[in-house]
Amino acid sequence: MLNYKAPLRDMRFVMNEVFDYPAHYRALGSGEDASPEVVDAILEAAATYCEEVLAPLYVSGGEEGCHFQAGEVTTPKGFKAAYAQFVEGGWQGLSFPTAYGGQGLPVSLNLLKSEMMGTANWAFSMYPGLSIGCINTILQYGTEAMRQQYLPKLVAGEWGGTMCLTEPQCGSDLAQVKTQAKPLGDGSYAITGTKIFISSGEHDLTDNIVHIVLARLPEAPAGTRGISLFIVPKFLVGEGGALGTRNAVHCGSIEHKMGISASATAVLNFDGAIGTLIGEPNKGLEAMFTFMNTARIGTAIQGVAHAELAYQGALAYACERRSMRALSGKKEPEQVADAIVWHPDVRRMLLTQKAIAEGGRAMIYGAAQLADKMFAAAWAGDQAGYKRHDGELGFFTPILKGFLTEMGLEAANLGMQVYGGHGYIREHGMEQIARDARIATLYEGTTGIQALDLLGRKVLLQTRGQCVRDFTAQMWVLARPGLLAGGLRGRMARALARRAVQWNTLTLRLMLKAKADPEQVGASSVDYLMYCGYVMMAYHWALMAQRAEQALHSGQGPESAAFYQAKLQTAQFYFERLLPRADAHHRMALAPASTLLQMPVAAMAG
Amino acid sequence: MLNYKAPLRDMRFVMNEVFDYPAHYRALGSGEDASPEVVDAILEAAATYCEEVLAPLYVSGGEEGCHFQAGEVTTPKGFKAAYAQFVEGGWQGLSFPTAYGGQGLPVSLNLLKSEMMGTANWAFSMYPGLSIGCINTILQYGTEAMRQQYLPKLVAGEWGGTMCLTEPQCGSDLAQVKTQAKPLGDGSYAITGTKIFISSGEHDLTDNIVHIVLARLPEAPAGTRGISLFIVPKFLVGEGGALGTRNAVHCGSIEHKMGISASATAVLNFDGAIGTLIGEPNKGLEAMFTFMNTARIGTAIQGVAHAELAYQGALAYACERRSMRALSGKKEPEQVADAIVWHPDVRRMLLTQKAIAEGGRAMIYGAAQLADKMFAAAWAGDQAGYKRHDGELGFFTPILKGFLTEMGLEAANLGMQVYGGHGYIREHGMEQIARDARIATLYEGTTGIQALDLLGRKVLLQTRGQCVRDFTAQMWVLARPGLLAGGLRGRMARALARRAVQWNTLTLRLMLKAKADPEQVGASSVDYLMYCGYVMMAYHWALMAQRAEQALHSGQGPESAAFYQAKLQTAQFYFERLLPRADAHHRMALAPASTLLQMPVAAMAG
Repeated sequence: MLNYKAPLRDMRFVMNEVFDYPAHYRALGSGEDASPEVVDAILEAAATYCEEVLAPLYVSGGEEGCHFQAGEVTTPKGFKAAYAQFVEGGWQGLSFPTAYGGQGLPVSLNLLKSEMMGTANWAFSMYPGLSIGCINTILQYGTEAMRQQYLPKLVAGEWGGTMCLTEPQCGSDLAQVKTQAKPLGDGSYAITGTKIFISSGEHDLTDNIVHIVLARLPEAPAGTRGISLFIVPKFLVGEGGALGTRNAVHCGSIEHKMGISASATAVLNFDGAIGTLIGEPNKGLEAMFTFMNTARIGTAIQGVAHAELAYQGALAYACERRSMRALSGKKEPEQVADAIVWHPDVRRMLLTQKAIAEGGRAMIYGAAQLADKMFAAAWAGDQAGYKRHDGELGFFTPILKGFLTEMGLEAANLGMQVYGGHGYIREHGMEQIARDARIATLYEGTTGIQALDLLGRKVLLQTRGQCVRDFTAQMWVLARPGLLAGGLRGRMARALARRAVQWNTLTLRLMLKAKADPEQVGASSVDYLMYCGYVMMAYHWALMAQRAEQALHSGQGPESAAFYQAKLQTAQFYFERLLPRADAHHRMALAPASTLLQMPVAAMAG
Repeated sequence: MLNYKAPLRDMRFVMNEVFDYPAHYRALGSGEDASPEVVDAILEAAATYCEEVLAPLYVSGGEEGCHFQAGEVTTPKGFKAAYAQFVEGGWQGLSFPTAYGGQGLPVSLNLLKSEMMGTANWAFSMYPGLSIGCINTILQYGTEAMRQQYLPKLVAGEWGGTMCLTEPQCGSDLAQVKTQAKPLGDGSYAITGTKIFISSGEHDLTDNIVHIVLARLPEAPAGTRGISLFIVPKFLVGEGGALGTRNAVHCGSIEHKMGISASATAVLNFDGAIGTLIGEPNKGLEAMFTFMNTARIGTAIQGVAHAELAYQGALAYACERRSMRALSGKKEPEQVADAIVWHPDVRRMLLTQKAIAEGGRAMIYGAAQLADKMFAAAWAGDQAGYKRHDGELGFFTPILKGFLTEMGLEAANLGMQVYGGHGYIREHGMEQIARDARIATLYEGTTGIQALDLLGRKVLLQTRGQCVRDFTAQMWVLARPGLLAGGLRGRMARALARRAVQWNTLTLRLMLKAKADPEQVGASSVDYLMYCGYVMMAYHWALMAQRAEQALHSGQGPESAAFYQAKLQTAQFYFERLLPRADAHHRMALAPASTLLQMPVAAMAG
């Protein structure tokens, strides 16, 4: 039943009609080559590759998983050939500088490509996906020699890359990192320690794997201020990228996971592996966090991807599976029963998935324009511009990552639910989507970590609510002209205006509560994040509805009219059937921290 | 990390202090033997069996799964021995009539036993669990000869039983059942057809398996009024229960499922298998639904079971795993970091699980008293009493089954979330709980089916809201004395009173809307069910809080005081942090059906 079709019509709507990407690219330093024709050609080619090469490997790859034997990892059948096509197509270099073999296109285009690849086959997309952080780190912090040494092969996709942070005793709390880096006297270091949960840490798709590793120099300060960053390749690399001897980093095992089993999650043992310091000593954590915002948007995409794939699978089944009759009378009298798509509760589930997939897509494409500006500034060496745009983006990323991955998981579970008992068996692929989607709220910082970052850092500490005031000002601009209008437009405008006020008031109240009780931040954070997500998605649905209404007014052929009508109807669904959840989160976010903390730990066991 | 301990303290609190089971059993015809001492001894013995025999097989059984070869199913290692102990302990007969070898104790005791078995090892518990429907059907509809033939072995647990409803083309819509029953002239029938998703349909735990099969007689009316019920044993049974020849029912395969892989889900092919008609011709569906209410409570228990197990696993980890520091200052300064149980968001997750597990337990033990009365009437041949109690119970079952399984799934997912990335790998068992919990909202009628049963049948059609008026009257009785009180007691009382009014008003509004648009029932049903669940659980938490407060006032030792304090604190948590979700469901239930149905099916694909 799973038969991924890239939603190009919707992607173009969001790019061109909602966010005016053509104008955005024209204004962007790095965007001059991203003409509408080029963009279109890239989207079409990526769609074909995803639909024809990656999607057919989704269920089989998940079923087979990766194989581990004596330190070597074999990816599932078909992955090597599909990856070779990926390299051949030059897909890895899409948004990297031409100086290192990339195509120099804006990073947003890479995110769109990632969305399609991830929807077609999330586990596969993680292999090239993990390299991106490695490449960005070397671009930003490496010397020109390092760049020449590593980037051409990484940008071509011939080598893979990883980020090695987590250790058995610590994930979110990197202050506890123990891996040691011992200077060898020749400028290089011997790296010793164990890293776990390293996605793409070992596999058979590339000739070399370049690890970016967090480790401590001798006598480095304890905690986060004593962590440095090292490049540790699987095979040592000579001048011009020639492969040398095997380095002392070995895969001890791969994890047996609930899902994404085609993605190898490695335990890596560094036994005095040769590494090179990159960036300043003891400032590794800052460097590591430089591109965290884009990495997190990359994970937010997983929410959209799995909502989209689960929606496509569930819709097809709902149109085919027949059960009972509509309560208002037979819809398909010639059939033994009506297709379940006629039952309102099945519609509720399908529209929830659709609203999440399309609403999430709009949220990501909006934020991707900020990412474009941030990278353009970074590669142009404009530190101030980079910081400004990174700050703007920083407000969006925890909301996108936290909220969209939670919603993606819900949408994936609804996909199973539409299938009834058939959703629970492997055959249809729906349960695989739910298992694959489950990781998204855990890695790249759990929802709880995103929420602390949002409320504690971004909103309270760094901007004292300014980021919320800025965003809600945008909401007001969108809402104001419609406040007195009738029908859907007026209802949405008034709902949006009310939420804009409510969001600011909520933020202010939490600011005051947090002053009185520092534990309030953690007590409110996840409900606050979910509240922000629902309201931010409401803004994006109102924006899409506005554009759809304009398009309908300007006259459309019947096929386009149906598309725009569906946009308006999905927007209405969102405001009536999903946005009300924000009220519950609003109220729960304001509950006192004491309720959570008053119970003695010993009494919790009952 | 999973190390199940039966929550006997809480079970006794709910039984004895909240619902006064001793008095209930004294009043019950079948309850005279269920003295407090007997009940206690049974609970202790069941707890020991579950903790020591079943729990250790949970992760290994899930990992290994069932094996299928040439029509035979082998259960995972250890299951046979564990099942032998189950039979030896006489556990299957606990609540069945002594005339057939049972112990004649109230059915509620069996539900408590099932809760412990299901928490320790849900997949295992399904083997004896599925027999119960088969036994009840034969007890109620079989002739005395059939009872003598089948019941002693089934009640002893030496044979297993199943219910064979689902076919490839139909699950919920049994009108589409195609399996044929051809009279053989000697009073028996040849059954031909394919049944799927048959839990315990084939396995190696018992000498025989007795299938209760839905099939059609020749020239039976189309639809649900042409379905009859047949007993089709795997091995034919002679007088006195002697095993005869192998019947023509064979297992074609077992399903590869997302979870509960230790439970065999069989495809059964009936190729002219010999069957006996049980009950009246063409009235099989009614007979099948007779004990649907108890079967659904049995599935509702899965929500409590997985919430409890996930809570126990997550709490243990949260006390051990160290990450970062509490925002109000170090809690464990001598350690490298604080245990994550100190972080308010981790508390929020743990308390959510605890509130679901304990609140759900109370809901089930309350309903179980109605089940006791229903069965006592049924076995005493009191049709009027049976119908009255079954009607009362019928209001609770869709709420318990629908709401508690959804909440159990949430609690299981929170268990993984507390573990962070470690929750996603198989090792700790947490992801297995989430996979196992996922089936509960699908089988025995999906959440959507429960919701239609609740709003469409129970509330609107059968009682015109009387069941809601009856339950909310109970809420008023509990709330009234506290309405003017200060503190938690007053807040809970006022919240409860407000919800009692709101629930009735919501029901009335939906009744009116449904008259104007029959599709409104399906459009509102799931949100209505969830609303009912949150409010009903609020009543149970208020009830538990009241009892805990009384106990504290009457003076308690420090250990008991901590238990009762924790009850009050969890009740407070429930009212502040979970009950507000009812508002969102309230509003979403009132949204018009047109929003769901206005989009043309062709436009849904985008």
